[in-house]
Amino acid sequence: MSAVLAALRRPVVAAPMGGGPSTPRLVHAVGRAGGLGFLAGGYLTPARLTEDVERVRSLGAQPFGVNLFVPTIPPADDTAVRAYAARLEPEARRLGVQVGQPVFDDDAYTEKLAVLLDRPPAVVSFAFGLPSRDVVEALRARGSEVWVTVTAPGTAPDAEVLGVDALVVQGVEAGAHRGGVDDTDDVALLPLLRLVASRTPLPLVASGGVVDGAGLAAVLAAGAGAAQLGTAFLRCPEAGTAAVHREAVVTRTPTELTRAFTGRRARGIVNRFLREHADAPAGYPAVHHLTSPLRAAARAAHDPDAMNLWAGQTHELARELPAGEVVARLVDEARVAVRDLTARADGW
Amino acid sequence: MSAVLAALRRPVVAAPMGGGPSTPRLVHAVGRAGGLGFLAGGYLTPARLTEDVERVRSLGAQPFGVNLFVPTIPPADDTAVRAYAARLEPEARRLGVQVGQPVFDDDAYTEKLAVLLDRPPAVVSFAFGLPSRDVVEALRARGSEVWVTVTAPGTAPDAEVLGVDALVVQGVEAGAHRGGVDDTDDVALLPLLRLVASRTPLPLVASGGVVDGAGLAAVLAAGAGAAQLGTAFLRCPEAGTAAVHREAVVTRTPTELTRAFTGRRARGIVNRFLREHADAPAGYPAVHHLTSPLRAAARAAHDPDAMNLWAGQTHELARELPAGEVVARLVDEARVAVRDLTARADGW
Repeated sequence: MSAVLAALRRPVVAAPMGGGPSTPRLVHAVGRAGGLGFLAGGYLTPARLTEDVERVRSLGAQPFGVNLFVPTIPPADDTAVRAYAARLEPEARRLGVQVGQPVFDDDAYTEKLAVLLDRPPAVVSFAFGLPSRDVVEALRARGSEVWVTVTAPGTAPDAEVLGVDALVVQGVEAGAHRGGVDDTDDVALLPLLRLVASRTPLPLVASGGVVDGAGLAAVLAAGAGAAQLGTAFLRCPEAGTAAVHREAVVTRTPTELTRAFTGRRARGIVNRFLREHADAPAGYPAVHHLTSPLRAAARAAHDPDAMNLWAGQTHELARELPAGEVVARLVDEARVAVRDLTARADGW
Repeated sequence: MSAVLAALRRPVVAAPMGGGPSTPRLVHAVGRAGGLGFLAGGYLTPARLTEDVERVRSLGAQPFGVNLFVPTIPPADDTAVRAYAARLEPEARRLGVQVGQPVFDDDAYTEKLAVLLDRPPAVVSFAFGLPSRDVVEALRARGSEVWVTVTAPGTAPDAEVLGVDALVVQGVEAGAHRGGVDDTDDVALLPLLRLVASRTPLPLVASGGVVDGAGLAAVLAAGAGAAQLGTAFLRCPEAGTAAVHREAVVTRTPTELTRAFTGRRARGIVNRFLREHADAPAGYPAVHHLTSPLRAAARAAHDPDAMNLWAGQTHELARELPAGEVVARLVDEARVAVRDLTARADGW
């Protein structure tokens, strides 16, 4: 049902990674290797999104995707967010910046949709909620496929009714933001694939913790049409990952889900800020804006303890290789895993 | 390195499920179907364990395993456990029973080890901690393999040094107790398999959320020698699952990790008791003993809201079939998944 998935030479999607890592160069390199690259439209201005889309196009003709965040409804009462802002003051002083303004904006959603309708990529995927039927129909009428993120089986039928082309099934092991409607969902990838497959015939893209070819073969065996990997590409030279983030990825430090950085649960490598603000309130994107100056300052100061080190649970296995080589190794290893499995199955 | 795993006709292990489900009949039926059945030695008296081991032997000659809980060190201060006991009083009155005594006992560990050394099963597996080297050596000298439960990659090298034969790799999606050294580990199964495989060459048995053949094929592709399934066998006629528990398993109600019932994190289907006691303290097995009379009364009253409904994240997909048929379908479906995957891999 997804022509884009069916046409992929290699069943590998590079996850949209906001805040830097997903550059046009990374998108291009993954596409050239036979996978599907994704731009992360979240946080970008419409002008910058336009520029990035055109940059990917200028690098080559491979299909690629763009991800957008669906705006969430602001809470009636943001007392908890204001209280959190006050608690962040000492940290801001230490870093020499001001705490940001806790704005519940819509990340220029309508304007960015207009950019994509004007320059339709092969796929537009959505996180943090489902787009409206009008949006789905408008994008499909322009030739883009629409993929939506699912973190609980109950979302699958709702998405199917909207007429989307595929589901990005995100397990709890995934790095960065929980992309589903409800950020408290905690179903692991393998169970979620089986639960979602039992409720919809839509093609599934498996996301969360896949970092090598054995993991790729596993999610394909579990019914996915492709795997979407983020952390596996963080160390690529084409990625825009900050140096301090690259250094954290190779450690064995565990990850945790936290609202400390953005007010929406997201998985990051455990550090001081995450531990000290384990009680951070729900309130995306207001909390994102609160901590934005702090994170930027920490990144500039090469301070891994005061910034978000988004990563999936297998981050220590991510490889420092060109993106095309990452795709090639994933597929080579998956082929070996499939061959071994076939030999074993002959004995059952 | 595990002769038992290598000799299995079918790569399916029935998880030890304490408190009733894992009967000698279930163990026998799984073994007869070419898998490996497991008795749950936890909670049983040494006399009852002896009886159950002999009962499995009397049913047939297939190899089987027995699981034991490694005793944990009691806390210096059990104030939180006593406070929880007081909070349980209204619930106990409602059910017409007394709150149990918060004893930190060792579940007759030494006596049960003696039973197993006397009647060595093919495998003795351990949960809640690592056995001592003496225990490992004594069991292996009697011809039993020793398997230990791992919920974090860091435990793998410790287990390897002990000379164990295999690791039961338990992901966070698994039903019932977290079986590792630390009950706060929350790594999902696929990532954990890859992380553990990167640190040890020991054979791995994958546990958590596997309920059908696609899931089985997935964990084998990810490097496991076999999958260990619990929830998938809960509805079998040979299982000793309580009727009220069987009814809960077929619902779509989500699961959560909780300490409410035993003081050790365990995954169960969400119900009133679990929600009301989300703040239950750590303190296994004292909390287990506190709630034991309440759970027994709730089970007898067919009250799904005051008892532990242990289940993995895919429980709604568990099938009501004889255990031998569950094993056969798992393997048939896995074969289909492998065949499909092989066809796809030819196109990469």
